[in-house]
Amino acid sequence: MAPLSPLAPTLIPFLDRYLPPTTKVNSETGLNTKLPFVTLTYAQSLDSRISKAPGVQTVISHLETKTMTHYIRSKHDAILIGIGTFLADDPGLNCRFQSPMEQKVHLIRPVIIDPTFQLGAKYETSRLRKTAEEGLGLPPIVVVDSLVLNQNPQINTFCQKHRIILIDLDRNSEARFVWEDVFAELGRQTLNSVMVEGGASIIESLLSCATSNEDTHLINSLIITIGPVFLGKSGVEVSPMNELRLSEVNWWKGIRDSVVCARLNKQDHRS
Amino acid sequence: MAPLSPLAPTLIPFLDRYLPPTTKVNSETGLNTKLPFVTLTYAQSLDSRISKAPGVQTVISHLETKTMTHYIRSKHDAILIGIGTFLADDPGLNCRFQSPMEQKVHLIRPVIIDPTFQLGAKYETSRLRKTAEEGLGLPPIVVVDSLVLNQNPQINTFCQKHRIILIDLDRNSEARFVWEDVFAELGRQTLNSVMVEGGASIIESLLSCATSNEDTHLINSLIITIGPVFLGKSGVEVSPMNELRLSEVNWWKGIRDSVVCARLNKQDHRS
Repeated sequence: MAPLSPLAPTLIPFLDRYLPPTTKVNSETGLNTKLPFVTLTYAQSLDSRISKAPGVQTVISHLETKTMTHYIRSKHDAILIGIGTFLADDPGLNCRFQSPMEQKVHLIRPVIIDPTFQLGAKYETSRLRKTAEEGLGLPPIVVVDSLVLNQNPQINTFCQKHRIILIDLDRNSEARFVWEDVFAELGRQTLNSVMVEGGASIIESLLSCATSNEDTHLINSLIITIGPVFLGKSGVEVSPMNELRLSEVNWWKGIRDSVVCARLNKQDHRS
Repeated sequence: MAPLSPLAPTLIPFLDRYLPPTTKVNSETGLNTKLPFVTLTYAQSLDSRISKAPGVQTVISHLETKTMTHYIRSKHDAILIGIGTFLADDPGLNCRFQSPMEQKVHLIRPVIIDPTFQLGAKYETSRLRKTAEEGLGLPPIVVVDSLVLNQNPQINTFCQKHRIILIDLDRNSEARFVWEDVFAELGRQTLNSVMVEGGASIIESLLSCATSNEDTHLINSLIITIGPVFLGKSGVEVSPMNELRLSEVNWWKGIRDSVVCARLNKQDHRS
């Protein structure tokens, strides 16, 4: 794999206040210390598509923003995706950014939301497994439906063999996990920061939940790269269910892309 | 009406090379001199919505980018919208930006794409008419379907009374005007530059036409303001039919918004 291009130095101060605190935050900051710090990050086209068709990996951002993604990974304990992204992209989900000050690469824990354990069919030939076995990454945490796990005890055997950590949770009436449950469980695994990378249904569900939740901000930071391209109507779009205003907005201008960092506006939660 | 906020000085050099040339371009530049210079410009949310619901005017951009819009108007001969935007927003469609160097405000010609002449029902009580009668703007050019005009000769009388200029054109098999015909007619009216502002169906149609056209770039410049907000699934989105890569991309960072300027990538037209 080709080495990452150098990190644009201006990105370090730009991203700083949107990254997880290095010490655990206290209740005075208004953040719930029981839940990890959650950063939602993705790259989109001008027409808010993250790929040109379902399951098609699409280059949207410049190499400098790819390096940025690995830099952001180096500041998080875990990286979360949906099973659709795992199956479509076969991602390594590791951190390839190495600070000149540090001796070794940061090991980030992959987390895969996979209610029906579709991971089993592809894991053995995946980059994720290869990366973990080479010591360049960690085996994943997989979040499965409790009922599915009860009915398929062989999932336990499979996961033990591959050092995969299972979290089993109930799904709600819409057949979805409750995000607060997911993050609370990740917190119990001593993961203090989670970077959510995709795909579209994960991002939309988390953004939509952010608009409906009364008291808690599940998303602490939003980092979106916008690539100067239209992917068109048949692309996979990201748009939440409801309007969502942002605060503490800041923009960074790259060679071709722009990156926006923000927090969610608290007022939306009361409206 | 409240005066515009001051123009951010950095916008002037940033926008300069995306604005119409002050002298007519020649064939060596690759631009078709028979057609006006066309600038497509609009403000969108992060999820590429231009309003939160059909017909609902939605604040997306900061006041400084509103001033930018009037500055861009001051550099164009005409401003083009669809009849839906006229009916929903009751816009003034004039230019309120005045350079400190100039004695009077720039008069820009409104152009309304209105195949079935729905304008007639609302024009007499519109801001557009009021603005024109006060000398702060010009009466519009209205582009109507030739068949509709033949069957309704009273449209001519109405337009003469209000100094509205009619252009009648045939529509194609998809009940749409051919953009090249529209711009050719505007060129014949000695309009050398046209700023297209919306709404969504006009923008999408023009972007989609840009992707299908072999030889001509109908759009010379793209100027998109991105406001840091999600408007959500029920918003009115802008996304062309096909993928569209951009070139000569440049970003400007405002107080809250970002503005991207670009040209269409020629290679898309051959792919």
